[in-house]
Amino acid sequence: MRLCTIMNGGKAVVGVKTDDGKIIDLSKQMPRGPKSVVEILAGGKKVQAEVAKACTKLKAGATVSAKSAKYLCPIPNPGKILCIGLNYRKHAEETGNPIPPYPIVFCRFNNTLAPHNGKMPMPSHSTQLDWEAELTIVIGKKCRNVPKEKALGVIAGYACFNDGSVRDWQFKGSQWTLGKNFDGTGGFGPDIVTSDELPPGGAPLRIMTRVNGEVMQDSNTDDLIFDVPTLVHEISKVMTLDPGDIIITGTPSGVASGRTPPNWLKPGDVCEVEIEKIGVLRNPIVQGA
Amino acid sequence: MRLCTIMNGGKAVVGVKTDDGKIIDLSKQMPRGPKSVVEILAGGKKVQAEVAKACTKLKAGATVSAKSAKYLCPIPNPGKILCIGLNYRKHAEETGNPIPPYPIVFCRFNNTLAPHNGKMPMPSHSTQLDWEAELTIVIGKKCRNVPKEKALGVIAGYACFNDGSVRDWQFKGSQWTLGKNFDGTGGFGPDIVTSDELPPGGAPLRIMTRVNGEVMQDSNTDDLIFDVPTLVHEISKVMTLDPGDIIITGTPSGVASGRTPPNWLKPGDVCEVEIEKIGVLRNPIVQGA
Repeated sequence: MRLCTIMNGGKAVVGVKTDDGKIIDLSKQMPRGPKSVVEILAGGKKVQAEVAKACTKLKAGATVSAKSAKYLCPIPNPGKILCIGLNYRKHAEETGNPIPPYPIVFCRFNNTLAPHNGKMPMPSHSTQLDWEAELTIVIGKKCRNVPKEKALGVIAGYACFNDGSVRDWQFKGSQWTLGKNFDGTGGFGPDIVTSDELPPGGAPLRIMTRVNGEVMQDSNTDDLIFDVPTLVHEISKVMTLDPGDIIITGTPSGVASGRTPPNWLKPGDVCEVEIEKIGVLRNPIVQGA
Repeated sequence: MRLCTIMNGGKAVVGVKTDDGKIIDLSKQMPRGPKSVVEILAGGKKVQAEVAKACTKLKAGATVSAKSAKYLCPIPNPGKILCIGLNYRKHAEETGNPIPPYPIVFCRFNNTLAPHNGKMPMPSHSTQLDWEAELTIVIGKKCRNVPKEKALGVIAGYACFNDGSVRDWQFKGSQWTLGKNFDGTGGFGPDIVTSDELPPGGAPLRIMTRVNGEVMQDSNTDDLIFDVPTLVHEISKVMTLDPGDIIITGTPSGVASGRTPPNWLKPGDVCEVEIEKIGVLRNPIVQGA
């Protein structure tokens, strides 16, 4: 199942994607059904089967075209946005960093989220805006201290993320928080694809970034240093994870900052992150505040 | 005005503190009034004057004693919890770090919050739980790119925070996120004191930590390297700040990890953070998961 959140009729509604490029507005198709993507993911197989059943005979006016839809982020306000740094070997190398012995975790806040087709602002305080294509884990069950062999059981689905990074601000101090939290620099969407439609742990899947159509990153989620079960296992030693929390698993090599000279994103560019079987996340770059 | 959030009659309600040790349950005193502390803070002088006026003639049964009250965090779910590292000179020295040239920012998630009198769990994965007394800034206005000379205008109040830190996990990688985000390790409360009752920028104010009554930290907020206006100015260059967001301004010297041998917190200890004119935040340490 492929789920999104869209604006339709002036309100945020759950969208269920069909194979032929339409989005079913679930609020019309199933008026007493789940009101959010998180509710469907947390509801597990039972709720997802009910949603799938409700979507078999479409009512008149219950769909919008995926091309013209106004997307919000599939989860507009995740409780936690956890990000993993230097989790592909060649990316660690291009940044001049050693291979980390343990997952490096940093955070984003919700102000940073930009939906599919949403503008990604280059800050007025910097010109060093960089892309980072990343596979996103979406948590479906409240959990803590999850054994590695049970980690896939708490994951509801996967999505695309563009971890837009303002490099000079990322390295103003030892902690990366500022460079990773400029308003609107985190592309997220368009859809969440439930785990049952993807290979276990979201790998292998080809992952790419294109800027104005030119390929900048081209790798595979099979190359993660710390794989999806390991990340859930380790992070859940520290904190309770809740449905709708997301873990952004790190980016492969090919970022702007690894090039000579760096070809930073600039207003007018269009940045696309694509992950095989998950989708294409598109964000135009604009001048920001 | 001194505001808190308490459980009363089975629900979370706003509490307004009186000078004689009582808490007015605002839901009883002003049934159509503000439903949250953030609403009062964001409402500015006008709403705060209405609340103060409504609290002049107390109805029967509208108060509970501050001693027996069941506290929640004064803001139970802040939109952002931003934390500043190494922001007192002697603390930077005791950790062997240079004085930072720019504010070091890291983050906490809401799973880490513990209210006044709430249990602070020592994780089962570590014995290195440390205290950190910190002055907390509470944002009252949505803002971005705030000039330093206008920064005090977006601050609604101040509070006590205990930035409980699991030191070995803090330094597993370059980013401190894991060590700062164990469940329940961030004491917050009991009250938010509005800015008008404190010196401008929350300084000078004596700030202390006591463990089982013994003084461990004893400093003054006047010693901050980056003062309160500077922090708001710099962080707001990066992100939109919203009412209820909190900025935790850093801890003075005297943490356990700066001692030989370190006297880590352990189950059975009681840790208190006190800031002059703001209050005392008390958290008993227990064995955690």
